[in-house]
Amino acid sequence: RQSLKIGMLPADGIGREVLPGAKAAILALGSSIPKTEFIDLLAGFEYFTKTGTALPDETVQILQSECDCALFGAVSSPSRKVTGYSSPIVALRKKMDLYANIRPVKSVSMNPKGEPGVDLVVIRENTECLYVKQETQTVGEHGKEARATRLITERASRRIGELAFKMALERPRKHLTVIHKSNVLSITDGLFRETVRAVPTLPGMDGKYDDVTVAEQLVDSAVYRLFREPEIYDVMVAPNLYGDILSDAAAALVGSLGLVPSVNAGDSFVMGEPVHGSAPDIAGQNIANPLAAIRSAAMMLRHIGYGDGADRIERAVDSVLREGKVLTPDLGGKSKTSEVVDEVTKRI
Amino acid sequence: RQSLKIGMLPADGIGREVLPGAKAAILALGSSIPKTEFIDLLAGFEYFTKTGTALPDETVQILQSECDCALFGAVSSPSRKVTGYSSPIVALRKKMDLYANIRPVKSVSMNPKGEPGVDLVVIRENTECLYVKQETQTVGEHGKEARATRLITERASRRIGELAFKMALERPRKHLTVIHKSNVLSITDGLFRETVRAVPTLPGMDGKYDDVTVAEQLVDSAVYRLFREPEIYDVMVAPNLYGDILSDAAAALVGSLGLVPSVNAGDSFVMGEPVHGSAPDIAGQNIANPLAAIRSAAMMLRHIGYGDGADRIERAVDSVLREGKVLTPDLGGKSKTSEVVDEVTKRI
Ligand SMILES: CC(C)[C@H](C(=O)O)[C@@H](O)C(=O)O
Ligand SMILES: CC(C)[C@H](C(=O)O)[C@@H](O)C(=O)O
Repeated sequence: RQSLKIGMLPADGIGREVLPGAKAAILALGSSIPKTEFIDLLAGFEYFTKTGTALPDETVQILQSECDCALFGAVSSPSRKVTGYSSPIVALRKKMDLYANIRPVKSVSMNPKGEPGVDLVVIRENTECLYVKQETQTVGEHGKEARATRLITERASRRIGELAFKMALERPRKHLTVIHKSNVLSITDGLFRETVRAVPTLPGMDGKYDDVTVAEQLVDSAVYRLFREPEIYDVMVAPNLYGDILSDAAAALVGSLGLVPSVNAGDSFVMGEPVHGSAPDIAGQNIANPLAAIRSAAMMLRHIGYGDGADRIERAVDSVLREGKVLTPDLGGKSKTSEVVDEVTKRI
Repeated sequence: RQSLKIGMLPADGIGREVLPGAKAAILALGSSIPKTEFIDLLAGFEYFTKTGTALPDETVQILQSECDCALFGAVSSPSRKVTGYSSPIVALRKKMDLYANIRPVKSVSMNPKGEPGVDLVVIRENTECLYVKQETQTVGEHGKEARATRLITERASRRIGELAFKMALERPRKHLTVIHKSNVLSITDGLFRETVRAVPTLPGMDGKYDDVTVAEQLVDSAVYRLFREPEIYDVMVAPNLYGDILSDAAAALVGSLGLVPSVNAGDSFVMGEPVHGSAPDIAGQNIANPLAAIRSAAMMLRHIGYGDGADRIERAVDSVLREGKVLTPDLGGKSKTSEVVDEVTKRI
């Protein structure tokens, strides 16, 4: 690549405060990555309240036709049902076919509470399950009745399963846990479980995954065990909603949601996204933790082939954390967002 | 009541080892409750493998026509899809219209890790959501496609909401948190949220719930905050699946799932049930923690009007825990199930 075009979608709340930090970290890499252009793109709940659309067609079009990758901030949720509103991040994942949400959760030694060592990745299917948003409402004998469809397909389960096995194979422990609730959802979660487990037996695999050990766990007991013995997990693969919940649960183990990055990845595009939300309660105060966004930028760069740049960013973040002097309030520190960003970029 | 008939459904695995403990605790109350008869009833996955049915009609019939209340043990889940099998506990909840699953989670001071004080109740809607088990599978262009229906009705949301407000009002902190994911499921979870929140405005309420403070939280962030600041929760009310996950998560905070009781309650029947599963890995070793089952028996007794008896059982359990000498391995102890039961009954 001669140059790099990165779509920037800060969206709402602290999304707007952390994305500049990600940009600063990327710029700090200097000439070790191609000349980078950042393209600001519109999306979000606030944008919806102004215009009636949460994700303008133009944003999707520019992402598809001009950008090499993207960074998303966070999106606010309406506090009451708002007609016509639909989450732009859910829509983006589907429209760009970003079928995998990869969420690594790892404790750094600075961890103030001495919590157990956590080093796991949640791989969340990103396009279906209850997120297909097929909902209806009728009125029955006893009042309103609402129904949502939960879709699980063999195709989506297989591709997320393939990615999960691939990632497990690349990690030292090579352990994969398949999350489901097939004791209740025997057909949908049954399909997910069987399809993921069958990945190593697909034509052409030829024993490729022989070294990966596979376990499975019901989602309720997975959350329980995640709290009690997080060290048993390496790679976890889960349908969309369970993955959403599990990654927040795992984030609680490493001190703050403000540390946990993710990428939304498809076969031809990747979008980094901190796992935290738009945090309206602290927005506008310059105290949001920028590290999840910065780490998401690193993951995104790694994904498109700039592993060295990603390493430099990640090492800088880890060293700031390990030192523990310049931290935002969510980690018990007193520093501002911008101070943490400066501290990281200085070390890149 | 002249006499009390309690249906006993140990079902599978450690369900069979902990239910005798619950029985012993009830018997230890002696003449302070009516003469009690225990009726052993069949159900479970093992029973299914022998007979092809997991919940015989006779069991339901006897519960409905003869029993004043019941205790359920735990049920095993098949490790592969088994045609014709359907979870008997899910079926029982529906057939007996036990629409509320009430799961109190409270830390006792013995808590060895010095974890933060937890004192909350998860009130889980027990009859609908994805548990309606309406699933289909078709074959599309790209392979199998499975769909499940998630049902949320105004009626079920209202009655669980009424119960939740009632329970919140009875507790010192009078705080209710409504759990949902209406940023994605705007229609189904939107209906749940609006209906529950509207309970205080129903005709005839006349300011009854003015003292109850109401908050709400998305399920993913609720799990996160449950780990980080469990003390913010008092009563949590949730649709079925979220309640399932949240109660396991909360159990992790108090040291062991083996401590957390529940009742499945309807307008005319109540069934106690420990929150833990059948734990095939430790079944048959006489090391399962009987305290969740014993506490479930106390909750059940309280529900049908024997609050004094319930108090005596609960105080005995708490004192065994606080002393911390006779504990099963899940709590770091070395005692057998039967030794814990003896220790509790001695103190009743
Ligand atoms: C904002 C919301 C729609 C989103 C989700 O549920 O996927 C968020 O919780 C996340 O985890 O990215
Ligand atoms: C065994 C299973 C069907 C059940 C549930 O999901 O309700 C269990 O997890 C529970 O919490 O009682």
